[in-house]
Amino acid sequence: MRAVRMTQWQGEPVLTEVPEPDPGPGEVVIAVGGAGACHSDLHLLHEFEAGALPWNPPFTLGHENAGWVHRLGPGVEGLEPGDPVAVVGAWGCGRCGRCLAGLETYCERPDLAPVPGGGGGLGLDGGMADYLLVPGARHLVPLPEGLTPAEAAPLTDAGLTPYHAVRRSLAKLTPESTAVAVGVGGLGHLAVQILKAVCPARVIAVDPREDARSLALAEGADLALQPGEGLVEQVRDATHGHGADVVLDFVGSDDSLAAAAAYARPLGDLTIVGIAGGSLPVSFFGVPYELSVQTTYWGNRSELAEVLELAARGLVRARTTTFDLDDAVDVYARLAAGEITGRAVVVPAREPVRTA
Amino acid sequence: MRAVRMTQWQGEPVLTEVPEPDPGPGEVVIAVGGAGACHSDLHLLHEFEAGALPWNPPFTLGHENAGWVHRLGPGVEGLEPGDPVAVVGAWGCGRCGRCLAGLETYCERPDLAPVPGGGGGLGLDGGMADYLLVPGARHLVPLPEGLTPAEAAPLTDAGLTPYHAVRRSLAKLTPESTAVAVGVGGLGHLAVQILKAVCPARVIAVDPREDARSLALAEGADLALQPGEGLVEQVRDATHGHGADVVLDFVGSDDSLAAAAAYARPLGDLTIVGIAGGSLPVSFFGVPYELSVQTTYWGNRSELAEVLELAARGLVRARTTTFDLDDAVDVYARLAAGEITGRAVVVPAREPVRTA
Amino acid sequence: MRAVRMTQWQGEPVLTEVPEPDPGPGEVVIAVGGAGACHSDLHLLHEFEAGALPWNPPFTLGHENAGWVHRLGPGVEGLEPGDPVAVVGAWGCGRCGRCLAGLETYCERPDLAPVPGGGGGLGLDGGMADYLLVPGARHLVPLPEGLTPAEAAPLTDAGLTPYHAVRRSLAKLTPESTAVAVGVGGLGHLAVQILKAVCPARVIAVDPREDARSLALAEGADLALQPGEGLVEQVRDATHGHGADVVLDFVGSDDSLAAAAAYARPLGDLTIVGIAGGSLPVSFFGVPYELSVQTTYWGNRSELAEVLELAARGLVRARTTTFDLDDAVDVYARLAAGEITGRAVVVPAREPVRTA
Amino acid sequence: MRAVRMTQWQGEPVLTEVPEPDPGPGEVVIAVGGAGACHSDLHLLHEFEAGALPWNPPFTLGHENAGWVHRLGPGVEGLEPGDPVAVVGAWGCGRCGRCLAGLETYCERPDLAPVPGGGGGLGLDGGMADYLLVPGARHLVPLPEGLTPAEAAPLTDAGLTPYHAVRRSLAKLTPESTAVAVGVGGLGHLAVQILKAVCPARVIAVDPREDARSLALAEGADLALQPGEGLVEQVRDATHGHGADVVLDFVGSDDSLAAAAAYARPLGDLTIVGIAGGSLPVSFFGVPYELSVQTTYWGNRSELAEVLELAARGLVRARTTTFDLDDAVDVYARLAAGEITGRAVVVPAREPVRTA
Repeated sequence: MRAVRMTQWQGEPVLTEVPEPDPGPGEVVIAVGGAGACHSDLHLLHEFEAGALPWNPPFTLGHENAGWVHRLGPGVEGLEPGDPVAVVGAWGCGRCGRCLAGLETYCERPDLAPVPGGGGGLGLDGGMADYLLVPGARHLVPLPEGLTPAEAAPLTDAGLTPYHAVRRSLAKLTPESTAVAVGVGGLGHLAVQILKAVCPARVIAVDPREDARSLALAEGADLALQPGEGLVEQVRDATHGHGADVVLDFVGSDDSLAAAAAYARPLGDLTIVGIAGGSLPVSFFGVPYELSVQTTYWGNRSELAEVLELAARGLVRARTTTFDLDDAVDVYARLAAGEITGRAVVVPAREPVRTA
Repeated sequence: MRAVRMTQWQGEPVLTEVPEPDPGPGEVVIAVGGAGACHSDLHLLHEFEAGALPWNPPFTLGHENAGWVHRLGPGVEGLEPGDPVAVVGAWGCGRCGRCLAGLETYCERPDLAPVPGGGGGLGLDGGMADYLLVPGARHLVPLPEGLTPAEAAPLTDAGLTPYHAVRRSLAKLTPESTAVAVGVGGLGHLAVQILKAVCPARVIAVDPREDARSLALAEGADLALQPGEGLVEQVRDATHGHGADVVLDFVGSDDSLAAAAAYARPLGDLTIVGIAGGSLPVSFFGVPYELSVQTTYWGNRSELAEVLELAARGLVRARTTTFDLDDAVDVYARLAAGEITGRAVVVPAREPVRTA
Repeated sequence: MRAVRMTQWQGEPVLTEVPEPDPGPGEVVIAVGGAGACHSDLHLLHEFEAGALPWNPPFTLGHENAGWVHRLGPGVEGLEPGDPVAVVGAWGCGRCGRCLAGLETYCERPDLAPVPGGGGGLGLDGGMADYLLVPGARHLVPLPEGLTPAEAAPLTDAGLTPYHAVRRSLAKLTPESTAVAVGVGGLGHLAVQILKAVCPARVIAVDPREDARSLALAEGADLALQPGEGLVEQVRDATHGHGADVVLDFVGSDDSLAAAAAYARPLGDLTIVGIAGGSLPVSFFGVPYELSVQTTYWGNRSELAEVLELAARGLVRARTTTFDLDDAVDVYARLAAGEITGRAVVVPAREPVRTA
Repeated sequence: MRAVRMTQWQGEPVLTEVPEPDPGPGEVVIAVGGAGACHSDLHLLHEFEAGALPWNPPFTLGHENAGWVHRLGPGVEGLEPGDPVAVVGAWGCGRCGRCLAGLETYCERPDLAPVPGGGGGLGLDGGMADYLLVPGARHLVPLPEGLTPAEAAPLTDAGLTPYHAVRRSLAKLTPESTAVAVGVGGLGHLAVQILKAVCPARVIAVDPREDARSLALAEGADLALQPGEGLVEQVRDATHGHGADVVLDFVGSDDSLAAAAAYARPLGDLTIVGIAGGSLPVSFFGVPYELSVQTTYWGNRSELAEVLELAARGLVRARTTTFDLDDAVDVYARLAAGEITGRAVVVPAREPVRTA
């Protein structure tokens, strides 16, 4: 079968032929119907060196995956070939307390996981291929009616990550509250939609690009602002002087974080999602009282089921452009060049492949 | 009446005679039965300059106060002279959303408060005197039976501050969790007791002083460790490798915070209580995933009522040394010299003064 | 001034002249701009006997009130004559733990309240008059821009009561959950709007009247069903067999409660809001596991501020018909006859009366 | 191997020989080191008729089990023969949303579970035998150091059930709150210990038997009361008139529930654990406002891990009497006759059996 693979650190992806995977006990092979091409793949391809992560190439790329059940390993029940499914991407050990509570992103026995701290497309073969081996049926979420794998794929990361971040702040997202989404890209434009769908907070989007701000307003943001000099004042003006109750920073630079700390409200949340590499010094007199500052990483199975439900009901929709698998190498080049609008989704198959 | 006053920035306290206060509408004068001498008073006396805070001397010191109702202003109901009471120290505007929700520490209209961002002993006359004017009956909590004002006074800050910090982390303090209290001083030794009283978490205390570690163990800590080289490893060993679910840092130095971030568990809490002036850089790859890092400041009325209840039931007890009001100036000198064991409490009156 | 008064148990309301109230210390008189006529007033007028409640007529009716600040009693700060305000209706003692936490509906010292277990229009003079005496400035919530007192008045009960009920169930109102509102009347039609505004749950409305079901759908309900034989099955079908996560029963009859218990989901909430007098027998094998069954009563200040914010942003709107104060007696007759569409709001003044 | 089996409805248990089970894929056989004899087994044996439950005899009794891993089925990782483990008793489908969230007690696809709505000793072979087949490794919790299977076994139900009930009420169990445990038997005496271990609430135990009340006080209850005439008044007196914040009714009779509703506090919790068959009519004016009334059933894996941790640390200890497996039939007879003090635990093996 075809696969787009990362073959070395600091190289380019390669389209090649590899053997079709066989499902072992408890495993499932899916026919891929959508695999998102994510900016973080570019980081992975170009910026890391051997030893920085607990795993190494070669492996097939693609950590945002959906498709149809293709073959079931021994002992798998409750799924049938042809069932449309989305793939939960973080594959933990499945046995530690955190995994058993559904938090495989924060698995505490990564040494027992299929790969430590990774998953499909992150150390193991991912979905940028005709078929994907999923190491446990629990990583599959049935697609609700009306959602195709190509639509669902980007939701497994670009949707799930902001959803997880929003969900942990829900108690602070009251009718009088304000949420700020910093950076209206692949994750940020979904964050705006998710916020509007799940809570009554007012939503402010922040982005230097005019078209990104327009997109945010089109997705339901109440206000869209430019970063820079006047931002702190503008957020205060828009919030009766209180500041923002929840800030989701999809950029994560020194500047975006410093601004967020300046316009956040005491008792609020400031969640770092973006990996621009910035840092916020937190000290007793340096940030608003009881502002919780934290990172966040991806999300879990029950949250993905909720994101898919929102999408099936039309409340959340990723802006995507679809491509054939044969063009995937080029997609990464265009992604690096900033030439792609919305999320790029590679579509190996448009309908379930019937097993003989 | 007698009063121990701060008369200028960067000076020493002065015992002097001032007029007894008159309660206006809604106000209450209490006969002080206990006023804690707090290390933060030394910071206030010696380290701040004019303009650093939104208020200035002169005022009477003492922000940890309890006593007996002495005189009621017009319109005050539900209190009688002689009633033993503790004083909630943060006096907000009483009208903004946060004050109406009982969070006067985080008043959002400090311009409408008796003094912005302060209270008795912090910009306004405090309790280091025979009588204290309290600007609203809502700041008084009746003492539960069995608790004297001298016992209660230190609980209004040294007890209330850690209680507030513990309470916000309660959901993470499960039977399998571990809480770390860094610094076993006035607040820290009460934090250990509070943790043992309100939750089933294992408690680790960290302090470089051997007697402080012994105190922590006597107060119920499960383990007491020294800061420094082996600390991170020792906390990991004591927690099956998981790290600490909740860290309450009563020191707040660069070192204590860096260590805390290293031994904290993903999804945990790291709360900065101490004002040693340290800072923790929070970044995507620099701290455990979803570790919430925040400061905390004092506490509110309902929380003080809960601390007093714990104390009345013998579950929490401040280690105190009591002094006469006439000796209070000397108490501050001895406090600065590190000569006082436990919390120093100045006791202007040992029983309620009967009004004619 | 004019006032519509209840003068005896089991009688009819009377329009009469009474002296204009004078505000005492801490009190505020408002010029009434909207007073809702509530079905519960009819219960009060016609069905109760002396001794059933802890207070007695005569008093002015009207417990859903909004208007403009007219005169301030001594000591009231932060309000100016002409300020538009809504009135929180439950007036507790203001000093017990529950009142200090903002829960005056559940005041634990009703003997110290202005009237035990009541408020304006419920034992004390209410808002069906030119002026209303409010016994504490804390009972007033400033109207957000764009909301008139006539629009706000019904929200103080018909909006606040379902909002309080929804808010306590928020954690269960996830994207995959279903909420059922039983009875689409004054409270129920607002409940549908509130649910859609504050959470992503699917909403099912239940009402025997076709026009009420149409109204529910127009307000955003995803489905509207008839009570009766097929209801339980229909709710199960609409919820993948799971049942309803949250049921808000605005009827509260034996039948509506029995049906709710049959179509509710284990771990759900069944909240009795309506006072049709029904009862649900709760037993180990008689209701779904861990279904929480409870009543609910009105709401508190911070919740009213949130409802008003939703209304100011156009997310919640009471369907009302307005009347002159001179017609208020007739309004109650028409209300009893079922001739009024939407909430009846009596409007004594259409703009603030300027004080000389 | 030996097994104590239920062979028919409304009969007596029988000790017999049955084949030793073989573990299939994903399954585990444990050598039983403790199997609790529970009063509910007597209900099961004597009171049910065919058709009342979704399963039928014959099967081996025993739903409170712990032991040592004996044989692993294909594909089971992370366990070794000889590992001491406790068994989570409710065996759901493992695939529905509730099971994946760890709530197998409330499995929503019981048709896909090993047996619908049951588990080992409840429709499937249980632990009253030399060996027990556990249908999934996820049902096993490693025993923390210092806890034997015989000590752990009763905690899997008599400890887990009250723990689950307490845990859902934790937010209401503040220092000023009061919890009432009604019935100080197998579950109730552990409830008292659990309450004291995990929260600062005052604890009142209610039981007509003087020795049960003495036991409750010995386990840490602050007060022990008799049911009957004065109870409501006594609870009110002990709670400053407020009533009980949380009531856990381990009896569940009409009388115990009616009393609980009378002494419970508005906004409290009344949880029905006992299966005496009583019923509480819940109506708008019939119970305190916002008192949540619900049943509760057993608990889940993460909760069992927490109970075992409390036990390993000496905070919770079941009072047990141990018996040989050969005497188990007699144990049930003595249990029915009320002759057994504490929980009866049958001990098939006192140490792990070494596999060849």
